[in-house]
Amino acid sequence: MAAVLVCALAFTTTVAQAADPLLSWNDGKAKQSIVEFVAKVTKEGTPYYVPAAERIAVFDNDGTLWAEQPMYFQLLFALDRVKALAPQHPEWKTQEPFASLLKGDVKGALSGGEPAIAQIIMATHARMTTDEFDKIVRDWVATARHPRTKRLYTEMVYQPMLELLAYLRANGFKTFIVSGGGVEFMRPWTEKVYGIPPEQVIGSSIKTKFELRDGKPVLVRLPEINFIDDKAGKPVGIHQYIGRRPIAAFGNSDGDLQMLQWTAAGAGPRLMLLLHHTDAEREWAYDRKSHVGRLDKALDEAQAKGWTVVDMKNDWKTIFPFEKR
Amino acid sequence: MAAVLVCALAFTTTVAQAADPLLSWNDGKAKQSIVEFVAKVTKEGTPYYVPAAERIAVFDNDGTLWAEQPMYFQLLFALDRVKALAPQHPEWKTQEPFASLLKGDVKGALSGGEPAIAQIIMATHARMTTDEFDKIVRDWVATARHPRTKRLYTEMVYQPMLELLAYLRANGFKTFIVSGGGVEFMRPWTEKVYGIPPEQVIGSSIKTKFELRDGKPVLVRLPEINFIDDKAGKPVGIHQYIGRRPIAAFGNSDGDLQMLQWTAAGAGPRLMLLLHHTDAEREWAYDRKSHVGRLDKALDEAQAKGWTVVDMKNDWKTIFPFEKR
Repeated sequence: MAAVLVCALAFTTTVAQAADPLLSWNDGKAKQSIVEFVAKVTKEGTPYYVPAAERIAVFDNDGTLWAEQPMYFQLLFALDRVKALAPQHPEWKTQEPFASLLKGDVKGALSGGEPAIAQIIMATHARMTTDEFDKIVRDWVATARHPRTKRLYTEMVYQPMLELLAYLRANGFKTFIVSGGGVEFMRPWTEKVYGIPPEQVIGSSIKTKFELRDGKPVLVRLPEINFIDDKAGKPVGIHQYIGRRPIAAFGNSDGDLQMLQWTAAGAGPRLMLLLHHTDAEREWAYDRKSHVGRLDKALDEAQAKGWTVVDMKNDWKTIFPFEKR
Repeated sequence: MAAVLVCALAFTTTVAQAADPLLSWNDGKAKQSIVEFVAKVTKEGTPYYVPAAERIAVFDNDGTLWAEQPMYFQLLFALDRVKALAPQHPEWKTQEPFASLLKGDVKGALSGGEPAIAQIIMATHARMTTDEFDKIVRDWVATARHPRTKRLYTEMVYQPMLELLAYLRANGFKTFIVSGGGVEFMRPWTEKVYGIPPEQVIGSSIKTKFELRDGKPVLVRLPEINFIDDKAGKPVGIHQYIGRRPIAAFGNSDGDLQMLQWTAAGAGPRLMLLLHHTDAEREWAYDRKSHVGRLDKALDEAQAKGWTVVDMKNDWKTIFPFEKR
């Protein structure tokens, strides 16, 4: 009898999921705008139909696919790396921003602003081969824990967005990440976590150099910026990597504004969507005045132009996969 | 009766093609190395099996997928553009390399070497929007004719390589172009001609800048090099765009050597292949001393390491699709 009941429940769940691929989304304007857009562009024989090859959807990562508080996860990675590398750098004991960091004073270390952050990034992201860096990221992602939830960082992804990615792909879309974060910080895990292969990940990068070491070719990561994939850099990155204009774009901050503008300016049906972090209890609530993921100008433009704004508190049944019962 | 015969012939052709996807390749070592490699990596349950997601194949373009004589086709495009733009540039009448070019003295114009070529490229490829450049390329490709064959340039692609691209894709490979040519010169036509979508085309590029013009976003092409995807730049480009190492690489010149080295250095089965242009009658014959597509060091390394070398005269039944009867 119990077994029958379990089977019946499992069956019900399967049917419900088949019936609603966006199960973690509450019914409302946001969900409706997504479903209507997908129905429109996939319906053959209409003027709105978009061939599958042109169904390009771009997603910001920090704050759009995974969380970004109390600071960008890549910065937390860099701070962990400073600690791990400190024994090889005795000079860091007296050299800022490293000295403050090693004393546990993160706020003091970051008070140097962007130059301090750049120093931390270069000290932890460069001067190794690409294979070595790949392993460092994999090891960190497999073990490091978020300070508040104590979860792996790759568990702090948004369940409704995972459903949205799968829903778009099931409808012939090709899904890309277009993030201000480092491309080589994301590629080692995006395929497993989001179903997005490395070649569909666009991000910021440092330069690399091809070398033969004892006859073996390596790519060495240089402490020199190659490309910043943020703000006006996002359409540039999209054009450089994808070479065609997306028909759907998903972001959460002013860093995504130009990507949404670029997407909106194409012909035919378009979907521009912003996540508004409104749930202080289940996630975080922040927008116009936040240092991380500031959403100000883009929110005004979304309202003025009728883009979709997701109110995370009210539009999402579940935030993180680990909340699901 | 005639209709029956036509049907029968059509049926025979279909069956023959189904039996041999590399119909334009003569039986021999080159064809055998391709077929054996594909059989090996696609056979599940063996140590050589490669999951489909990792079946990345990279192809040079000039001299590998289409011809490159008497000079790179993109240079012929640039020369045509100089003529088209001359009325807007009266100063070119006295300014080299433009003055020589406009008098029909191509050799004289190009005698200035790389700086002269760079001047011609920037004068013809920059200072318009990406949409405008896309249209310029499409118009040229649809109308310009090769000086010797009088064919459209997109007809001067290699039939055996078209079959190879299709064969690899039918076996789960993802095919990429990795060319020293300009990425925006290739993307407008590679999907139609090779079945390779824009997001799988990697090439050299100039910088672009995002701007709002009367509220409408555009990307403006700047006269400034962004990336040179040649020689040691090819592994850099592969890593930057694809983020994983190919298992098969196809080239024809010393510009492809590092791409083949990078491919060869991965674990598991690998296929490195060089086309050797040996057919002066049906195509062109050139190698160690050619200014275009020089094949010298890479030929030595291929021979030393046992990479596949295609002798185009003897290995290919057909060179161009228009020769097929």
